Amino acid sequence: MTNKRRVIIFDTTLRDGEQSPGASMNLSEKLEIAQALVDLGVDVIEAGFPIASPGDFEAVRQIAQVVRGSTICGLARCNDKDIDRAWEALKAAPAPRIHVFLATSAIHREFKLKMTKEEIIERAVSGVKRAAGYCDDIEFSPEDAARTEPDFLCAVVEAAINAGATTVNIPDTVGYATPAHMGKVIRTLRDRVPNIDKAVISIHCHNDLGLAVANSLSAVESGAGQIECTINGIGERAGNCSLEEVVMALRTRGDFYDADTRIQTERLVPTSRLVSNVTGMLVQRNKAIVGRNAFAHEAGIHQDGMLKERTTYEIMRPEDVGFTQTDLVLGKHSGRAALADRAKALGYHLTGEQLQTVFEQFKLLADKKKEIYDADVAALIDQEIHDIAEQWSLESYHVSCGTGGKPTVKLSLRRGDQAITQELTCGDGPVDAIFLAIEKITGVEVVCRDFRVQAVTVGKDAQGEVNVEIEHQGQLYRGRGISTDSVEASAKAFLNAINRVAIRKGKPLHPQHSAVDGV
Amino acid sequence: MTNKRRVIIFDTTLRDGEQSPGASMNLSEKLEIAQALVDLGVDVIEAGFPIASPGDFEAVRQIAQVVRGSTICGLARCNDKDIDRAWEALKAAPAPRIHVFLATSAIHREFKLKMTKEEIIERAVSGVKRAAGYCDDIEFSPEDAARTEPDFLCAVVEAAINAGATTVNIPDTVGYATPAHMGKVIRTLRDRVPNIDKAVISIHCHNDLGLAVANSLSAVESGAGQIECTINGIGERAGNCSLEEVVMALRTRGDFYDADTRIQTERLVPTSRLVSNVTGMLVQRNKAIVGRNAFAHEAGIHQDGMLKERTTYEIMRPEDVGFTQTDLVLGKHSGRAALADRAKALGYHLTGEQLQTVFEQFKLLADKKKEIYDADVAALIDQEIHDIAEQWSLESYHVSCGTGGKPTVKLSLRRGDQAITQELTCGDGPVDAIFLAIEKITGVEVVCRDFRVQAVTVGKDAQGEVNVEIEHQGQLYRGRGISTDSVEASAKAFLNAINRVAIRKGKPLHPQHSAVDGV
Repeated sequence: MTNKRRVIIFDTTLRDGEQSPGASMNLSEKLEIAQALVDLGVDVIEAGFPIASPGDFEAVRQIAQVVRGSTICGLARCNDKDIDRAWEALKAAPAPRIHVFLATSAIHREFKLKMTKEEIIERAVSGVKRAAGYCDDIEFSPEDAARTEPDFLCAVVEAAINAGATTVNIPDTVGYATPAHMGKVIRTLRDRVPNIDKAVISIHCHNDLGLAVANSLSAVESGAGQIECTINGIGERAGNCSLEEVVMALRTRGDFYDADTRIQTERLVPTSRLVSNVTGMLVQRNKAIVGRNAFAHEAGIHQDGMLKERTTYEIMRPEDVGFTQTDLVLGKHSGRAALADRAKALGYHLTGEQLQTVFEQFKLLADKKKEIYDADVAALIDQEIHDIAEQWSLESYHVSCGTGGKPTVKLSLRRGDQAITQELTCGDGPVDAIFLAIEKITGVEVVCRDFRVQAVTVGKDAQGEVNVEIEHQGQLYRGRGISTDSVEASAKAFLNAINRVAIRKGKPLHPQHSAVDGV
Repeated sequence: MTNKRRVIIFDTTLRDGEQSPGASMNLSEKLEIAQALVDLGVDVIEAGFPIASPGDFEAVRQIAQVVRGSTICGLARCNDKDIDRAWEALKAAPAPRIHVFLATSAIHREFKLKMTKEEIIERAVSGVKRAAGYCDDIEFSPEDAARTEPDFLCAVVEAAINAGATTVNIPDTVGYATPAHMGKVIRTLRDRVPNIDKAVISIHCHNDLGLAVANSLSAVESGAGQIECTINGIGERAGNCSLEEVVMALRTRGDFYDADTRIQTERLVPTSRLVSNVTGMLVQRNKAIVGRNAFAHEAGIHQDGMLKERTTYEIMRPEDVGFTQTDLVLGKHSGRAALADRAKALGYHLTGEQLQTVFEQFKLLADKKKEIYDADVAALIDQEIHDIAEQWSLESYHVSCGTGGKPTVKLSLRRGDQAITQELTCGDGPVDAIFLAIEKITGVEVVCRDFRVQAVTVGKDAQGEVNVEIEHQGQLYRGRGISTDSVEASAKAFLNAINRVAIRKGKPLHPQHSAVDGV
């Protein structure tokens, strides 16, 4: 494997992935994911878009300060203010990268930017130069490159490299490319840009037609040296190239691609689960590599062929991507050290304080539930890192409900020293009765946009994990709660979302869609 | 568009899709999906594997009798008994197709079949000939073709066509191919099989590396004339080529592929939703084409570029694939005709009796819920077609629960004339208390493998849809229930699954993994 060409994995889960509607993350969540990406062996972490909002800036700044082992990248539009702000956030990183982008396709030039080709090149050059004044590692992206005229694309890329870009990234911003088309774009750059050897060619694909992975692989076949991707393929619309798929395609078909990455593939499933839990973006069962069914043959029938020779039906082993056979680990008598061990194996980096909180929750759970699985431990930890400064917390609840009558709920919430109790008979079921009581007490009126419960593990005593999405004044907020009691988990999730309304920090800028005056 | 080459769409949702662990369907569900596939414009419907089980046989037979407008296909291993049974099921169809398969790769020959190359060819020829004695439309699949030696693959294909195969299908059974590899296999067949023009070349890809759609498109580029695929890409392991993605890639990039299908693309979203509801295989938000986010830009920020010119960020319109803008349709005062209209627009084919049941449910719902959306109507209808002969039904329930104590549940179930009530104080939350009470009454002991709740629409009065998966004596059973009260929906779903245990009809054969003695 050492003789294969090494392709750089650039993960943009924290930037492009976070642009998935409803997937925004808080600071501690972003830090946890960044650490997990380092453990996974990601080469470059795009940590955010610093000028977009104070929250985005702070996340990039803290990741740059704390996270070690990967290059940390920040996004900037092609103007001085954006670039300066990106550098401000990144400067503490041992290996910082500034990523500057500017749209180049005719349709973007005409309708969005209202700039001529000459103005675009001039702007690109001055942006790259300014960034190169701050650090050596500069990435330039001609946005919508896949739809840009080849001659003009070559001219922009040549100028950006001359100005100091060390990576040129080719985005298929709207997910329009085919593998053959994408391969041709990369070959054109290699054939016609005289200084192309001075930069790494990168590829950034969207999955609108289901082709993001194939397009990325085609670019690698044609000479691209970096792939931009996200965990679980999350991202705007149908998302980005899925990291786990593109990495396992390169690994499994190394014979064909003659390329590999430094990804620790057995970290793929834990990282996928972490991102899914944190963002609320569930992974479908038939998702390649990390879906629950990815290695499952139809139950019961099992594999006459498999028993004779596993390669008849299996090209990868589940353990290669981090599915573990048995994950029953802890029980009532397990101590703090055992829990700390398990958390570490699951890929978490807990502070002493976090471990203490999780251990307390663990003991409460062990009283209710005999067998505590890895997924239970992960759910407890995710809840801890997911938690936000709590305005309101759940003190107690009681519900009485059934066929032929409205539910009655008695609910107590705490805020600081104050406990408020509300009693109501309303709603169609216990969950909406509780939501109504919470709204009454907190005074926050919302529309419930999404409500999902899923069992964390198996058995009737399994913990239920509840995800809610609420809308308040045109803005979406997520909340998450777990408990062995799904009604209690629902109350916690709803409160978690309500608490987020309180700490809302202003709407962030969107890198592509935000107003472009002055860019 | 009329000058483009027309590619045949062969849907195997009812056969390969049903092999997804946990996705098995009953007869009325299969009929409903088959009708929806006709409306969608699918050319060939693979309705099942008749010899696998009496249930499979009956489904293929009824679809062949009732469904009009598509070719109906049945699968058979390459032996007389399978082929005879397939024809028995198919013979009432105006356009029947028998699909015969036999593994050809070295690894399958050696470990699974223990047959020589000569024996394989002999078996293939005799199977195709027997099938061709029944009807004119014969498909032959050399299983694991993508890993079969090219010379031998060409020899098998030539012999099968000579024996009467009108379609030769190239399966990538283990999802190992790359687009370049798959294109090469198809070109090799076209270049080297002398009688290849007498048959349609078909492609059948699995998605283990995330490449099923790209591999299928590559085969079409190289001359394949039929694509085998499933709705939502369901199927064993990571599933099959996703119909909606491959169709929209051909439609959107018709300039490049110079090919099209006769799919009514505005039926894609309703069909996707139907299959997801019936199989319990949820579609992730960032799934291409039919995912909830597929056309969504990040909330709030919305599209400075989009407003200026939609093609800056959109290559397809949501309405092209069947996303509807506003779907608020019915309320308390809507009559039966309005409901029937809506059901038709949503793609359902209800009998008078079914419409009556759904209308009664609709009236009950309208009492609880002011605004009834398309998704609510669909959920009511899905419940009706999903329903099975009820052993046990829910009579009434009452639960009292809260922090600091075990829930108390009083539950009454009915079977025939008999009503049984159980009162229990147990469990951690209302849902597991109810599950325990149901087990007590019915005497069926199970392990709960999966439990999920999701809101059907928005708002606190939204209906909750519950999916459960239970294991009983090594076999998995699904259940589904809806109600505006999520606890009641959970009870219904659990009972639905328990009722399925009672009517279990014996484990079906699996086409690839089943014992092969005598094949």
